[in-house]
Amino acid sequence: MTAEQFADRHIGPGPDDERRMLETVGHSSIDELMDAAIPEVIRWHGALDLPAPASEREAIAELRALAARNTVAVSMIGLGYHGTHTPAVIRRNVLENPAWYTAYTPYQPEISQGRLEALLNFQTMVTDLTGLATANASMLDEGTAAAEAMTLARRASRTKSPVYVVDADTLPQTIAVITSRAEPLGIDVRVLDVERDELPGEFFGLHLQYPGASGAVRDHSPLVAAAHAAGALVTVAADLLALTLLRPPGEIGADIAAGTTQRFGVPMGFGGPHAGYLAVRSGLERMLPGRLVGVSKDADGNPAYRLALQTREQHIRREKATSNICTAQVLLAVMAGMYAVYHGPDGLRGIAARTHGAAARLAAGLRAGGVQVADVAFFDTVTATVPGRAAEVVAAAAQRNVNLRLVDADRVGISCDETTTAAHLAAVWAAFGVDGVAGDVDTALPDGLARTSDFLTHPVFRTHHSETAMLRYLRRLSDFDYALDRGMIPLGSCTMKLNATTEMEPVTWPEFAHLHPFAPAEQTAGYRELIAQLEGWLAEVTGYDAVSVQPNAGSQGELAGLLAIRAYHRQRGEGHRDVCLIPSSAHGTNAASAVMAGMRVVVVGCDDDGNVDLVDLDAKIDKHRDALAAIMVTYPSTHGVYETGIAQLCAKVHDAGGQVYVDGANLNALVGFAKPGRFGADVSHLNLHKTFCIPHGGGGPGVGPVAVRAHLAPFLPGDPLAAHVDGRPAISAANHGSAGILPIPWAYLRMMGAEGLARATGVAVLAANYVATRLRQHYPVLYAGNKGLVAHECILDLRPLTKATGVTVDDVAKRLIDYGFHAPTMSFPVAGTLMVEPTESEDLAELDRFCDAMIAIRAEIDKVGSGEWPAGDNPLSNAPHTAAMVSGDEWPHPYPRSVGAYPGAVDRAGKYWPPVRRIDGAYGDRNLVCSCPAPEAFES
Amino acid sequence: MTAEQFADRHIGPGPDDERRMLETVGHSSIDELMDAAIPEVIRWHGALDLPAPASEREAIAELRALAARNTVAVSMIGLGYHGTHTPAVIRRNVLENPAWYTAYTPYQPEISQGRLEALLNFQTMVTDLTGLATANASMLDEGTAAAEAMTLARRASRTKSPVYVVDADTLPQTIAVITSRAEPLGIDVRVLDVERDELPGEFFGLHLQYPGASGAVRDHSPLVAAAHAAGALVTVAADLLALTLLRPPGEIGADIAAGTTQRFGVPMGFGGPHAGYLAVRSGLERMLPGRLVGVSKDADGNPAYRLALQTREQHIRREKATSNICTAQVLLAVMAGMYAVYHGPDGLRGIAARTHGAAARLAAGLRAGGVQVADVAFFDTVTATVPGRAAEVVAAAAQRNVNLRLVDADRVGISCDETTTAAHLAAVWAAFGVDGVAGDVDTALPDGLARTSDFLTHPVFRTHHSETAMLRYLRRLSDFDYALDRGMIPLGSCTMKLNATTEMEPVTWPEFAHLHPFAPAEQTAGYRELIAQLEGWLAEVTGYDAVSVQPNAGSQGELAGLLAIRAYHRQRGEGHRDVCLIPSSAHGTNAASAVMAGMRVVVVGCDDDGNVDLVDLDAKIDKHRDALAAIMVTYPSTHGVYETGIAQLCAKVHDAGGQVYVDGANLNALVGFAKPGRFGADVSHLNLHKTFCIPHGGGGPGVGPVAVRAHLAPFLPGDPLAAHVDGRPAISAANHGSAGILPIPWAYLRMMGAEGLARATGVAVLAANYVATRLRQHYPVLYAGNKGLVAHECILDLRPLTKATGVTVDDVAKRLIDYGFHAPTMSFPVAGTLMVEPTESEDLAELDRFCDAMIAIRAEIDKVGSGEWPAGDNPLSNAPHTAAMVSGDEWPHPYPRSVGAYPGAVDRAGKYWPPVRRIDGAYGDRNLVCSCPAPEAFES
Repeated sequence: MTAEQFADRHIGPGPDDERRMLETVGHSSIDELMDAAIPEVIRWHGALDLPAPASEREAIAELRALAARNTVAVSMIGLGYHGTHTPAVIRRNVLENPAWYTAYTPYQPEISQGRLEALLNFQTMVTDLTGLATANASMLDEGTAAAEAMTLARRASRTKSPVYVVDADTLPQTIAVITSRAEPLGIDVRVLDVERDELPGEFFGLHLQYPGASGAVRDHSPLVAAAHAAGALVTVAADLLALTLLRPPGEIGADIAAGTTQRFGVPMGFGGPHAGYLAVRSGLERMLPGRLVGVSKDADGNPAYRLALQTREQHIRREKATSNICTAQVLLAVMAGMYAVYHGPDGLRGIAARTHGAAARLAAGLRAGGVQVADVAFFDTVTATVPGRAAEVVAAAAQRNVNLRLVDADRVGISCDETTTAAHLAAVWAAFGVDGVAGDVDTALPDGLARTSDFLTHPVFRTHHSETAMLRYLRRLSDFDYALDRGMIPLGSCTMKLNATTEMEPVTWPEFAHLHPFAPAEQTAGYRELIAQLEGWLAEVTGYDAVSVQPNAGSQGELAGLLAIRAYHRQRGEGHRDVCLIPSSAHGTNAASAVMAGMRVVVVGCDDDGNVDLVDLDAKIDKHRDALAAIMVTYPSTHGVYETGIAQLCAKVHDAGGQVYVDGANLNALVGFAKPGRFGADVSHLNLHKTFCIPHGGGGPGVGPVAVRAHLAPFLPGDPLAAHVDGRPAISAANHGSAGILPIPWAYLRMMGAEGLARATGVAVLAANYVATRLRQHYPVLYAGNKGLVAHECILDLRPLTKATGVTVDDVAKRLIDYGFHAPTMSFPVAGTLMVEPTESEDLAELDRFCDAMIAIRAEIDKVGSGEWPAGDNPLSNAPHTAAMVSGDEWPHPYPRSVGAYPGAVDRAGKYWPPVRRIDGAYGDRNLVCSCPAPEAFES
Repeated sequence: MTAEQFADRHIGPGPDDERRMLETVGHSSIDELMDAAIPEVIRWHGALDLPAPASEREAIAELRALAARNTVAVSMIGLGYHGTHTPAVIRRNVLENPAWYTAYTPYQPEISQGRLEALLNFQTMVTDLTGLATANASMLDEGTAAAEAMTLARRASRTKSPVYVVDADTLPQTIAVITSRAEPLGIDVRVLDVERDELPGEFFGLHLQYPGASGAVRDHSPLVAAAHAAGALVTVAADLLALTLLRPPGEIGADIAAGTTQRFGVPMGFGGPHAGYLAVRSGLERMLPGRLVGVSKDADGNPAYRLALQTREQHIRREKATSNICTAQVLLAVMAGMYAVYHGPDGLRGIAARTHGAAARLAAGLRAGGVQVADVAFFDTVTATVPGRAAEVVAAAAQRNVNLRLVDADRVGISCDETTTAAHLAAVWAAFGVDGVAGDVDTALPDGLARTSDFLTHPVFRTHHSETAMLRYLRRLSDFDYALDRGMIPLGSCTMKLNATTEMEPVTWPEFAHLHPFAPAEQTAGYRELIAQLEGWLAEVTGYDAVSVQPNAGSQGELAGLLAIRAYHRQRGEGHRDVCLIPSSAHGTNAASAVMAGMRVVVVGCDDDGNVDLVDLDAKIDKHRDALAAIMVTYPSTHGVYETGIAQLCAKVHDAGGQVYVDGANLNALVGFAKPGRFGADVSHLNLHKTFCIPHGGGGPGVGPVAVRAHLAPFLPGDPLAAHVDGRPAISAANHGSAGILPIPWAYLRMMGAEGLARATGVAVLAANYVATRLRQHYPVLYAGNKGLVAHECILDLRPLTKATGVTVDDVAKRLIDYGFHAPTMSFPVAGTLMVEPTESEDLAELDRFCDAMIAIRAEIDKVGSGEWPAGDNPLSNAPHTAAMVSGDEWPHPYPRSVGAYPGAVDRAGKYWPPVRRIDGAYGDRNLVCSCPAPEAFES
């Protein structure tokens, strides 16, 4: 009765495919191939100690059992996490739709117009509601958004003061994240009661919460004026729902707004993922960190979207970047934006009014029963004082399935939201021992702070209000995009493998979706066990001793890992160690993270084979021996090669007193064959959205656990609500980060088992070598390791061809769209090249389709080179071809339409057509527009 | 705290839209419009007695509470319903994907190639596994498939005998359905133990079960030979999974195979919906009832799929049709076919082997413990004899969460399936009080019946075995099709309204999906309450006294209603009444159903206004007064008009002793404004897939409850397992029909409430009148009622234009594809016309887009008429235009490509492209191919 193996569904090539691929590569078996490819010095020959693989149904059954140990209570805890109704049409057609969730970051904008439009909606929503000029898309959570606001303020402020003032009525987890981020940067955070305490004489920034964590809504205008007078910038962390009724930050003079969009239809998920937001006033837009969608134009002059100002970002600016943020929260930002699209301004105002009405009624009932309620204006949250009885009241409410916030021994916080019902209010009143009130209740919104300005005036927020209209809008946008549900996305270093449905389904189960991150422990037993198991399995896979899943993106994992190294040195009295060696081929994020961790970046060169230059390494170690904190390397290298010198490298750094950070980006080439924690590394972050099947979501969510050897374990991230107690850093706002999507890697590991994981690695390496073998005679393959083998990806060098013909790597990437593909990674880690990572999930037919396309493109390049096609007007330079272009009444090009439209063996009936022609990115950067353009812009 | 109303999401036009539409139509309010449109004589002025509308979350919460009252036990009952693992990739991307479930029947094949290919896979799977030549797609369930096989055998047999022999080892519900269907047709069903009893001297057909209900697998070849010798045809009701291991019906000489494909990945759903199948040997294909997908070619000569031999069907042949089947089970047939595609032949063989292995082990364990197990070969089911203890054993198993079949006081049936685990076997053994066995167990498959022939050899069954490949295949096919998620499908009489996500979500909850229809009552309390509530609400909405949801399609509802009338007359000693009056404008199904109910059809004419001609009615009543059984009318009429004479008509028929059947097809024009059960009708069937939001699924599932006044209630369908006891007919194999999708109409009614339902009706009528008003000056609108108003649909008369210009209704329908629409209903009820039903779910923008397209097409027709465009080569005659056509290197047509490709204001970037050009249906009928064509056929 052996059921089918999930691994057989996850891994694309079947036994016949495998045999043919091995033949091409010239190896007799995957074992033999791996023996040849992986240096023995790092090889680990044991079997992973994981439970025997479960079938898909068994895994689901176990997850159901874990889910059943979570309790879905009514959450009135607030603190930035609120109950919300995800419109079912958005849940099913975005969050549960592979066309949205399997897409990559929109770096190829021509095939990403759908999610770019959705993100532009998100940005427009944020700017409209905050009253500021420009918003990005998106931040990881409110805590990190606030921390980014702090560093932005520091860059923009004319003062040199290191002091940052934080309103004491700020969410406690935000204070924890700000403090953790500030420390290595030398920022002096002062948490003050800004209503009462005097501001310092000099400070570069002021952080205010609006409404406050206590629920109080105050007019911050005087504080803003005072801060500006001192040369400081002001960040207002604002609740977007409240801003439909309250004067927005932009109108009280704030420079920056930050926060979360969770309550716009995104489930709480025990802490995440949700999209944070960050918006700035005019003049600061070029200082924004992270992804920014902007409007530009395509080759026909039609409006087209793409990521704007990418030169700000870490993958370009490296250690000079303003932030290390890379992966954002695209899928959740899409949902939040669509929530605003679906409800429209009137709908949102109605939700806010109902929410406020519930809070006002709640307060009135408490007061009528003699309970003291803070005498301030509020929106959705009230703080009740019950001297000595707070814990008792909270427990009584929990008995009634309602969670309240225990502020301290005397005070209870209660937050209302759009899910609040009369029954919930009755339960709260009962917990307080009062009767409540019937009849009308006055508003408790503050006088003089009512919003008067209009918002969400763009037609997109007034058009899709029926479910039918919304469904079609979602379909239309998703049809614009190319995701894994259409074909291969062979992006080197991105590991675009299968995101299996069985892994995804539990994410939207209520028992995983609807838990507040601060819910009582007894309600979260299932989650905590799942997380403990997952951390254990990840430790086993990587050979480390301890893992924290708190970092909610790879970049945050890097920061967490480097902060652990920093704390370790300081604890040993070697706090002066601050040099981080980074090879020139590293991901830009590495360098940016090192700076954020208070380190100085020193670059180590690479040799001609793409390996870290051990001679240069020696030199750099010698030069910085006393200051050496760490080295950050990626393994296999970003060149896609198993470097043989890795063990030596680790030893050299350790000998000099440094720690070794191995970036886990390329872990998909190691699982089951080598463990970084065993071959010399001290710490790694993993990208669960690469090797462990969390979908890329169009640019997020990701999860970036940090894994360490025992000596670094005491310095792993701590619970943000307890950060002041145990001194560990708060990396994310929620203790378990993006807990809501952890069932995905849990299910992957549970269903693959030790053997399945190793087989996946072997097939991934086989696939990369198959592609390299087939393409080598058409494009030089840069770098190789043992016996000419690559690891799990290979770099195709276009530079000689570009030099000879003028055809660029961009031309090839765009031409691949015509052939029905997403391009490989462009110009990383080497400019002018394409890096191909096929992963184990692509079957031989798809690998061959890709190789055939690349070979056909090579022939096209030759036609340009030979002059048969003119340099500026050929299928490559004109790519991608839209349907409108190839069916135009005029055809002025020197090649037939069919060559433009249907090259190679492209599937004519099922062809994917990009909605726009090639986009002029520079034009958009010169003419920055980051909100929805007027419909007239699209008139042809 | 009033939450938003679901009705505002369901109904497309908002208040502004409504106002503008009313202005155009010339009425001041919807109330005033409805007062004008609906004759006062039928008007019902009360408020529907329904619960106040629930919000989407409240409805979900109530459904969760109902679901919690169902118990998901391990089902080993068998009897044609088996546990099965729905591959998650198929569940999410077919069953939960609006691109599949909101599609209509593929009558416009150019925009239905995806589901047509999926259905061709289904047909190929059935023919391969049964070893027969041709299969249809699909039947409603095994019981009705067997009944259709019976009537097919009767048509094809050379004998005149009315005797039909049924193997006593047939599923009991199949025997019940066969018997119920046979009686009105004068067929004499003889249930015999075919292994022991002698066959009658003359009989036209023989029905065998393979494996038998008892589990026994016997070699039926001798019986087949004997039947053939007697001139009878043989139907083998076969389990497709067993056929992967056993010699198939076609190889033992069967003429027909029938059965269900449920266990191919379709959840049991407490009885349905699942796809039944019917396959025939060569020579019988043109006698097949129902939908048959065939291969033909398009205008470019490329292979293209469409429904074949439609002239057999009831909508064409009316009372001469061989069956009344109309709606099939497309969505479920797609799933079952994809299950075979995903597993492939080896996978299916493996599942069958594991299933058999479990049964063999089970039997061995029972025998080892001294339990007597029938000494026959078996596949998945064993019958154990425990004298006097059967009930006790079944109860003991139920205690262990396993349901067994109580055959009688002494015997227990136990069926294994792909979900059976060692733990399940242990539970069964424990229930019997035995220990079971370890170690190897011999096969119990019969000697000499092993399958030796290959099957599923087409590449489609060998290609999509990884989840990635499957996902892409599903996406590719769904992209070929136009469903409600792309735009309006204004099909008259089909009511293509919103299928809301909240209505759909509960369908795939385990507590609704995984119940066996014969599960013990205490495990199905939630289902039964949901059904009772739904039946009650439907009775309230229609004004009838009793409702049965058993009929699993509208056609079955018709049959059930007519059988109730028949039984009523017989009970009153008026069994001679057998004339059914049917207006000439009726749906063809009406006439076909009347014949199946043993009635003679007499057609009543219509007058120039499209109303039933009351003079002709009088004449027909006079002529057939003594034989008059019933009249079947549709209201509003199939012309989309509220006939004023309806009350008079009812009175006339009643006065002559007849019963009035009102076809509920057009109920969407009545809900909340008129109740058929109150204005004179005795019985109706409802189409829950029209008015009550069950999605059309690409051609099914549907649900067709029958609703009756009190005097007919005793004759409603009965439980098929109890049919022999209480004499009620068995219309479907399962007592509650397609119970699994009843949460959809339940949720719709629960969320709309009385006011929402009435508003939906009003807006539906407003929308139809808006379209009629806007288009009247461009196309004559045929028929109207009071004050020139139509009801919920309108007929556009193309005949004068066709006469003047040669442009046909087909040309306009295909041209609408270029404009981004699914065509309205063509040539029904009047040849040469288009019938438009917009429904309440389309907003004004979409209605205007449609009207604008129709007006633009009218201008195009005029260009043909004026000779500006030649008759045989213009955008209408060449429609639809594919991307390949308009981007061809040659363009030989006398109009620009842009006119062909992008007429009117069509969305260029988001344009839907059909994958094929216009399809030549007749070619395919002449060269009938009904299984997957070889891949070479697609080479260009």
